[in-house]
Amino acid sequence: MSHLIKSSTSSYIMLNKNILLLSLTISLLGITLGGNVLIWPMEGSHWLNIKILIDELIKKEHNVTVLVASGALFISPTSNSSLIFEIYKVPFGKERIEGVIKDFVLTWMENRPSPSTIWRFYQEIARVIKNFHILSREICDGVLKNQKLMDKLKKSKFDILISDPVFPCGDIVALKLGIPFMYSLRFSPASTVEKHCGKVPFPPSYVPAILSELTDQMSFTDRVRNFISYHLQDYMFDTLWKSWDSYYSEALGRPTTLCEIMGKAEIWLIRTYWDFEFPRPYLPNFEFVGGLHCKPAKPLPKVLWKYKGKKPATLGANTRLYDWIPQNDLLGHPKTKAFITHGGTNGIYEAIYHGVPMVGVPMFADQPDNIAHMKAKGAAVEVNINTMTSEDLLNALRTVINEPSYKENAMRLSKIHHDQPVKPLDRAVFWIEFVMRHKGAKHLRPAAHNLTWFQYHSLDVIGFLLACVATAIFLVTKCCLFSCRKFGKTGKKKKRE
Amino acid sequence: MSHLIKSSTSSYIMLNKNILLLSLTISLLGITLGGNVLIWPMEGSHWLNIKILIDELIKKEHNVTVLVASGALFISPTSNSSLIFEIYKVPFGKERIEGVIKDFVLTWMENRPSPSTIWRFYQEIARVIKNFHILSREICDGVLKNQKLMDKLKKSKFDILISDPVFPCGDIVALKLGIPFMYSLRFSPASTVEKHCGKVPFPPSYVPAILSELTDQMSFTDRVRNFISYHLQDYMFDTLWKSWDSYYSEALGRPTTLCEIMGKAEIWLIRTYWDFEFPRPYLPNFEFVGGLHCKPAKPLPKVLWKYKGKKPATLGANTRLYDWIPQNDLLGHPKTKAFITHGGTNGIYEAIYHGVPMVGVPMFADQPDNIAHMKAKGAAVEVNINTMTSEDLLNALRTVINEPSYKENAMRLSKIHHDQPVKPLDRAVFWIEFVMRHKGAKHLRPAAHNLTWFQYHSLDVIGFLLACVATAIFLVTKCCLFSCRKFGKTGKKKKRE
Repeated sequence: MSHLIKSSTSSYIMLNKNILLLSLTISLLGITLGGNVLIWPMEGSHWLNIKILIDELIKKEHNVTVLVASGALFISPTSNSSLIFEIYKVPFGKERIEGVIKDFVLTWMENRPSPSTIWRFYQEIARVIKNFHILSREICDGVLKNQKLMDKLKKSKFDILISDPVFPCGDIVALKLGIPFMYSLRFSPASTVEKHCGKVPFPPSYVPAILSELTDQMSFTDRVRNFISYHLQDYMFDTLWKSWDSYYSEALGRPTTLCEIMGKAEIWLIRTYWDFEFPRPYLPNFEFVGGLHCKPAKPLPKVLWKYKGKKPATLGANTRLYDWIPQNDLLGHPKTKAFITHGGTNGIYEAIYHGVPMVGVPMFADQPDNIAHMKAKGAAVEVNINTMTSEDLLNALRTVINEPSYKENAMRLSKIHHDQPVKPLDRAVFWIEFVMRHKGAKHLRPAAHNLTWFQYHSLDVIGFLLACVATAIFLVTKCCLFSCRKFGKTGKKKKRE
Repeated sequence: MSHLIKSSTSSYIMLNKNILLLSLTISLLGITLGGNVLIWPMEGSHWLNIKILIDELIKKEHNVTVLVASGALFISPTSNSSLIFEIYKVPFGKERIEGVIKDFVLTWMENRPSPSTIWRFYQEIARVIKNFHILSREICDGVLKNQKLMDKLKKSKFDILISDPVFPCGDIVALKLGIPFMYSLRFSPASTVEKHCGKVPFPPSYVPAILSELTDQMSFTDRVRNFISYHLQDYMFDTLWKSWDSYYSEALGRPTTLCEIMGKAEIWLIRTYWDFEFPRPYLPNFEFVGGLHCKPAKPLPKVLWKYKGKKPATLGANTRLYDWIPQNDLLGHPKTKAFITHGGTNGIYEAIYHGVPMVGVPMFADQPDNIAHMKAKGAAVEVNINTMTSEDLLNALRTVINEPSYKENAMRLSKIHHDQPVKPLDRAVFWIEFVMRHKGAKHLRPAAHNLTWFQYHSLDVIGFLLACVATAIFLVTKCCLFSCRKFGKTGKKKKRE
């Protein structure tokens, strides 16, 4: 049934073919020559993670510029020919960010959320988040209101901006510069950003809400808790992040919302994978690159075995103290039996990578959730940092070391992690380069972005169809009644006759 | 905050490390030595597509066995050392399958669905599908009720069964053999199988229903049509596929449903990709491998230019007739300007691969949909096979050849197709080998499979919360009324005093 239309000559143009093959090879090998990348980083462990991406981009001969506030805490600028730290002025020093982070950690640890304390927890944490937002706004002003910097950035002709959107601003900077942007994200509260701005469905019946410490195996009570968790966190997000709508509208010079702008991200790199996460729906512009920072362990050099400070008298002979340890190399050592961790995503991924079972002592943010995931997958035991005794810790350690299932499950997760068609770091870089090559990734963008929330949920269609049914029922009833009356009268008339 | 517990000695066991590295390398290179694969194929173009997978599996040194009914039409058995065609007896010959397929095509072409004829179309097509199901049941009986064959298959110790589930049975054969299975699928009516059995969300607001010829850009009327399409096709699937529930229950010896069994597929290979499909939600165990059969064009040999039969006198000098043409090589010829196609997925993918704009003359099944997709992406023009004149065809051809946007869009789709981290065929084979290596892919299976439909939609949770709210309102109202009465009486008493 298929026919081919050919032009008049059918000779081969070998040169054309070779050029086509070359460009195909370049495209297949994922080569993007000399890209110009702008980074909107976050503090702490977020910076450690995106630093790996930056190093890989530089290795692939891209030029990378990192926007750093003058009051940054962890980000230590060391520019060279292909890595530039563009430092902009903000009206505060390191101690301000340090103070807010400390407040955040301590508030969380003192008010760890549980069903009975949830409302108090949200109230306390809302106070800290408000402080974070005041800080973020000053950071954002530091770039957007610095016309000289913006002009310089515009002149640099960046191909892409990569933002860690745990707090806003990277996206609006990209929009003002007229360049595509993408995200590197662990999660947002209630997954609100992924759900409402990114349009990913999160069925509350089997996808545990962030911070709920629930798994994908939920009882009825769990599902009620999960359902409420989503709505509580959605509410929190709506109220606390709401003020960014007017900030973004002002910056853009037209009415907009934070969510509308965030929805313009070309690709969302999510810092987990199915070794860690419970399977759930997602969209083609979401890429799960958890563990992109992991690498094989290097041999441990002897000089490593140093420590600082006085050794406590009660310390056992088989415990050593170190001022700093190369965590990845130690986790990859064949004699490593277990990993006591606070449950940060970076550390957990190193343990998964090397197949080491864990004892989790979570403290704040996603850490309790992360340990809940590892417990559910049978690779960890948890101890409560607020109530634990040395006995508890010892028992937990004995359990993960002596019960073979923990090592087996850790090895199973490790096998899943290593058995992917493309390594997480390579996939992350591929999609960054893809966006640079194609000036976006519009073919992966769902049309849901063009719909209002009631259109998205087909509420207008359902309403219309219900109205049609109601009208039909009404008309049929009216007709019946009319007929009954008419035939009733005729009947009566006939009777009388 | 992280500590490491090490065992007493810290020396390296280099041998262990090397073995680990070797197994890691094997796992990273995706090597599965000597897998044993069972294929449950379908007829026609479906067979052409899965044949590519079979060839690749054999190239990777797996042994492949294809289950073929004695009355098969297109599948031509040619066994060798690593490819075995296991032929089983069915009580019909080629002409029966040929008859049903012809009936299917003609019925579709005579009753092409449109909003005004939709009900008649479904009635007519239901009749044909019933005939298909009678045939499928006889095919299924041919395997499941052939104890000698089942024993032989069991003894062969297959690692995996790959099924094209356009009609049922492959999955239940795998279950009876106790081996994992996966699907290669283009679509099911109303995506019912993917949605209800595979648990993929299909928001009717922006994901066009199969066979609707709609795109992801829908007006209100379109969305009403789309919403009704899903429900009509769901109803059709429910009524026509329902009878398999009892067949599967009987075969398995316990009450079950077709959907429950289909939901057990480890991986769903979907024969499209985002160059062709509109972005929509999916799950981690879905892999989009559209165009896995495409390959670079080979030079056209001179002996090719043969044709059979009498040349019509009206044929222009620039049109040639051939009995058979190597479509892929011609589409890849640099002088090819356009492709007149019936719109089968295989052919469209060859056009996308080589960046050739299309004139679509769709006939049945997914063909009108496929052309609607290509039209929406600006790479095709459609002509109606029932009403077209030679003028129409000529105009359509002139449009796609002379308006540069068609070639540009075809090239854009081609670039998207070629610019993937891993080629579709390699991804398909990777996941087949993954399931063999890990005896399944349970880490990708969403927990939604453990829920009933009302649990999945959180209807029990919503009901419970509404009941709580209603009770609270009732109690508060009662209290208020009680207080009013009481204080009212006290007031009256006071007044009297």
